[in-house]
Amino acid sequence: MSIQIPRGTQDILPGTVEYWQYIEQKAREICRAFNYKEVRTPMFEHTELFQRGVGETTDIVQKEMYTFTDRGDRSLTLRPEGTAGVVRSFVTHKMFGSPNQPTKLYYIGPMFRYERPQAGRFRQFVQFGVEALGSNDPSIDAEVLALAMQFYQSLGLKSLRLVVNSLGDAESRQAHRQALIDHFKPRIGEFCSDCQNRLEKNPLRILDCKKDRDHELMKTAPAITDYLNDYSREYFEKVQQYLTDLNIEFVVDPNLVRGLDYYNHTAFEIMSEAEGFGAITTLCGGGRYNGLVQDLGGPETPGIGFGLSIERLLSALEAEGVELPVDTGVDCYVVSLGDAAKDKVVSIVNDLRQAGFVTEKDYLDKKMKAQFKAADRLEAKYVVVLGEDELEKGVVNVKDMQKGDQNEVAITELVHYLTNL
Amino acid sequence: MSIQIPRGTQDILPGTVEYWQYIEQKAREICRAFNYKEVRTPMFEHTELFQRGVGETTDIVQKEMYTFTDRGDRSLTLRPEGTAGVVRSFVTHKMFGSPNQPTKLYYIGPMFRYERPQAGRFRQFVQFGVEALGSNDPSIDAEVLALAMQFYQSLGLKSLRLVVNSLGDAESRQAHRQALIDHFKPRIGEFCSDCQNRLEKNPLRILDCKKDRDHELMKTAPAITDYLNDYSREYFEKVQQYLTDLNIEFVVDPNLVRGLDYYNHTAFEIMSEAEGFGAITTLCGGGRYNGLVQDLGGPETPGIGFGLSIERLLSALEAEGVELPVDTGVDCYVVSLGDAAKDKVVSIVNDLRQAGFVTEKDYLDKKMKAQFKAADRLEAKYVVVLGEDELEKGVVNVKDMQKGDQNEVAITELVHYLTNL
Repeated sequence: MSIQIPRGTQDILPGTVEYWQYIEQKAREICRAFNYKEVRTPMFEHTELFQRGVGETTDIVQKEMYTFTDRGDRSLTLRPEGTAGVVRSFVTHKMFGSPNQPTKLYYIGPMFRYERPQAGRFRQFVQFGVEALGSNDPSIDAEVLALAMQFYQSLGLKSLRLVVNSLGDAESRQAHRQALIDHFKPRIGEFCSDCQNRLEKNPLRILDCKKDRDHELMKTAPAITDYLNDYSREYFEKVQQYLTDLNIEFVVDPNLVRGLDYYNHTAFEIMSEAEGFGAITTLCGGGRYNGLVQDLGGPETPGIGFGLSIERLLSALEAEGVELPVDTGVDCYVVSLGDAAKDKVVSIVNDLRQAGFVTEKDYLDKKMKAQFKAADRLEAKYVVVLGEDELEKGVVNVKDMQKGDQNEVAITELVHYLTNL
Repeated sequence: MSIQIPRGTQDILPGTVEYWQYIEQKAREICRAFNYKEVRTPMFEHTELFQRGVGETTDIVQKEMYTFTDRGDRSLTLRPEGTAGVVRSFVTHKMFGSPNQPTKLYYIGPMFRYERPQAGRFRQFVQFGVEALGSNDPSIDAEVLALAMQFYQSLGLKSLRLVVNSLGDAESRQAHRQALIDHFKPRIGEFCSDCQNRLEKNPLRILDCKKDRDHELMKTAPAITDYLNDYSREYFEKVQQYLTDLNIEFVVDPNLVRGLDYYNHTAFEIMSEAEGFGAITTLCGGGRYNGLVQDLGGPETPGIGFGLSIERLLSALEAEGVELPVDTGVDCYVVSLGDAAKDKVVSIVNDLRQAGFVTEKDYLDKKMKAQFKAADRLEAKYVVVLGEDELEKGVVNVKDMQKGDQNEVAITELVHYLTNL
């Protein structure tokens, strides 16, 4: 009996994996240009890290984590997101002590959430994200946004909408928090039980509620932008000015919030506006989190970053009909006729591969005609033929499948000949 | 309080991660030339897959797996090796039905084993491996070996030792098995309890025993090579002939065995002979497994592959003193003086990055001198300076840090200027 793939997970197969490779390569190139360096943290961490770093009250921690006990009786959890692990690593290795600050990091890798499987949602999915730790300069907020936008645009996405907001500093948030409590408290009985709990704990998260999103009080709720103090307002203005300088279009949405306590100042999302992309349009979310490093045991360190899902990006590319330029064909297919030629082909093929040519041959004792067919299916640019006559003369026949012409080439000259075509 | 990294795992940090990127890129390039395509399977599978695909009696399954129950009460296990998942994927997606056979796949990614942490051994480690499914042609055995050797050699390793053996087909193995039982049975009481169990179940694994390795019967044990039938012997001879044709040096070691029932014919290991590499010298192990696909619910399909650890490879590179050619410096550092210049630099930097130049600036309101120091630390090839005078004239000063010369360039011409240097 065959064994199934675990529910909610997927294999990424040849024919699709080339898009992933292309996308990841692009992410790496752009991070390199922006001088963000990769960090690879383990797939699992101590459970406490996510309880503290993602937040006890979040759906992720309460319902969606893969938590298990290892053979040494530690509670471990497969990482549900990337930021907590990166910040843990920043603290573990005292990166704050390096003279090169801010510390600019990126990650690409699998994350795990036990969610109900549905189109575009997987229990194992791949996130690409960046974190810039150690600077309070609005130009780095703009940079992080520019990096995300350049990433999407370089892949050919056009229908993008960048939404930004400011959550202000602690003082601004406190003023806004009180205003929210005053706004909702008189009629909190009309809201769901989650919202009732949120009222005192974290009233900002009421604005995120999916159940009560249509309640009339939602529309009239006080906006954070009206409660920003001078520093926060000027900070946000500077971020917007830089975005304008960089020709990055954006809209300000005072209702864009991030529920966790340690988020502050810049918050943003990038959505796809492609038709037919479906209900979930957010491609990327990010923001500033000036308290997180301290919460995880490090010194007070400002931070900003984003995370985005490659699966979601692939859906957006599909919705916009973008074809990524990947090449899956082979350069050479080497056809042989007869046992002696078949043996000789092994080293011819190896020489071509060592020279970097994507080269294939037959491994199933196929007849010549079937070998030509295989070459066709693999979209070989050149078909190299070695029959008994050629073997005796020490040559091969090289057929250019685009031009249709054919040349006899000495076996010892083949790599040289193809390199100079 | 700070949270520790889970025991036995590691963060791969900037300064080291560049070597990983380089190595993985090399693996991908070589696989591409050999026409092996990447497959990405989930980090966890149903536990049964590894019980069947790795073997109930192995140390891996009995002692080293990260097994847990998910919220849907499934027994899942973090993959301890790569082959089982790839073969499961081959069966799940009926890849055997594709006209392009054999199916040539590779994987690179984390694997998980709960082992006692020690130098060079991690509980999460990265394996690179290939699997060729669907051909019984000795040339593909040679190809898989050539791929592994080319990978190591392209990275600069020199002290490599390739050891090959044949385990023969089922008939040959049966004859050998009986000879082993006859050899050990009279004195099995002198062996460890594990070996006593192995005698009837799988006597081949006695040869692998670490406790009894010095027992005199080990040296005189019947070698599989003396029990190969004609087909198996000719197969093995052909593999060796191809290796010779490809100028790949190897030694035959009749004691090289792989304990699992489904292994047959070609088995091999690549060791490092570098001085000071330590006790564990095996870098790569592989072989033919003609029964595995069927064991995992697919049609009878021959297969061959290898797996190797990147951590082990890095140790070997270190032991040989090989420096991989990675570039971690930046192309441009843009220095600014004054508030207006500081703002303008944001878009200058962004333009350079969009053009592909690795570019950095200051984000900490550093004085000019400290910015120059930062440029130095980052090994900037060019330092671009924008002061108040330059800003007014719409120019920057570009200093070539290698040549030491300096030029005034219009801001609008900067990308063009650097591109044509």
